Amino acid sequence: MASTDKPSDPEYTSSSTPSVPEGVDYFKFDVILRFLLFAASLVAVVVMVTGNETELVLYQGIPVLQPAKFRYSPAFVYFVAALSVSGLYSIITTLASLSVVNKPHLKTKLLLHFIFWDVIILGIIASATGTAGGVAYVGLKGNKHVGWPKICNVYDKFCRHSGGSIAVALFGSIVTVLLIWLSAYTIHSRIPK
Amino acid sequence: MASTDKPSDPEYTSSSTPSVPEGVDYFKFDVILRFLLFAASLVAVVVMVTGNETELVLYQGIPVLQPAKFRYSPAFVYFVAALSVSGLYSIITTLASLSVVNKPHLKTKLLLHFIFWDVIILGIIASATGTAGGVAYVGLKGNKHVGWPKICNVYDKFCRHSGGSIAVALFGSIVTVLLIWLSAYTIHSRIPK
Repeated sequence: MASTDKPSDPEYTSSSTPSVPEGVDYFKFDVILRFLLFAASLVAVVVMVTGNETELVLYQGIPVLQPAKFRYSPAFVYFVAALSVSGLYSIITTLASLSVVNKPHLKTKLLLHFIFWDVIILGIIASATGTAGGVAYVGLKGNKHVGWPKICNVYDKFCRHSGGSIAVALFGSIVTVLLIWLSAYTIHSRIPK
Repeated sequence: MASTDKPSDPEYTSSSTPSVPEGVDYFKFDVILRFLLFAASLVAVVVMVTGNETELVLYQGIPVLQPAKFRYSPAFVYFVAALSVSGLYSIITTLASLSVVNKPHLKTKLLLHFIFWDVIILGIIASATGTAGGVAYVGLKGNKHVGWPKICNVYDKFCRHSGGSIAVALFGSIVTVLLIWLSAYTIHSRIPK
């Protein structure tokens, strides 16, 4: 029943079966995007967690070994927690998406649920990216007005990992936006003209 | 034509006119939520901008007048810019929403456009809330691991304003989530069963 091949006219499936309008079938793109979200979440978490670094720094004139860990910053802890949630979420929804590929009756209802949850996940990922990015920017540039020294001149590996992780999370946010757009467009295409 | 009174059965409007299924008319809630988003954006920007404070602090043993301004932190500048954008956006979309109240043909198409843009605005507000929140948390608690002192014991008014502004922005994010949910649900309700 499901039209997995690409239709040239968006309306031809809905006109063939007027009782169950299907619209265009973008479910394969949905699965691909959800897998991308999973990959982005996994990479972001792994890169952030593996950024730990220990450097010799001067503390009141005495050189001491001082580690930098993501765990030391509540912003980075929130970031790792949020991206872990989105990784788990993307696994569950990829499986849900795959399970209804051949059930057109359930698809539209599922897409509505997807939008509801995707929006929450978008809020979580976007805020986590912002939180980690804001703190990482202070680490990179410091803030002389309040006397926060920059730390990225000392902890270069830690900062490279944090920056890379934040960039991947930003990519994950964009994928989530695309997922919501796709679901909304698919639901809209099922309304008969 | 538009059914602005609350229907008891979600399907009765779509069954009465099968050529143009209307579903439930939630446009008044849409207008109310968009106005709330405007109010939240305005309050967040005003409270953040008016938080400037000058205090006498010890700088190398000498007391100096040191101001705290949102402009000193790139995170807070991004926050003010993002909330200004969402404020402008909410004005435009409230007017757009009001202009199609009596045009059921245009409504569904407009709702799809609303979802597309609301999702981007949600990403912007959520990331701005996160960014400002992350930096404000450092200001509140400091971070002894990297030697960033807390500043909220000195700049109490500035911190109260920042915290209040971030809380209002969080409320704005939740309103945007509700807006997307409402649009998605309305579009879904127009698909004939």
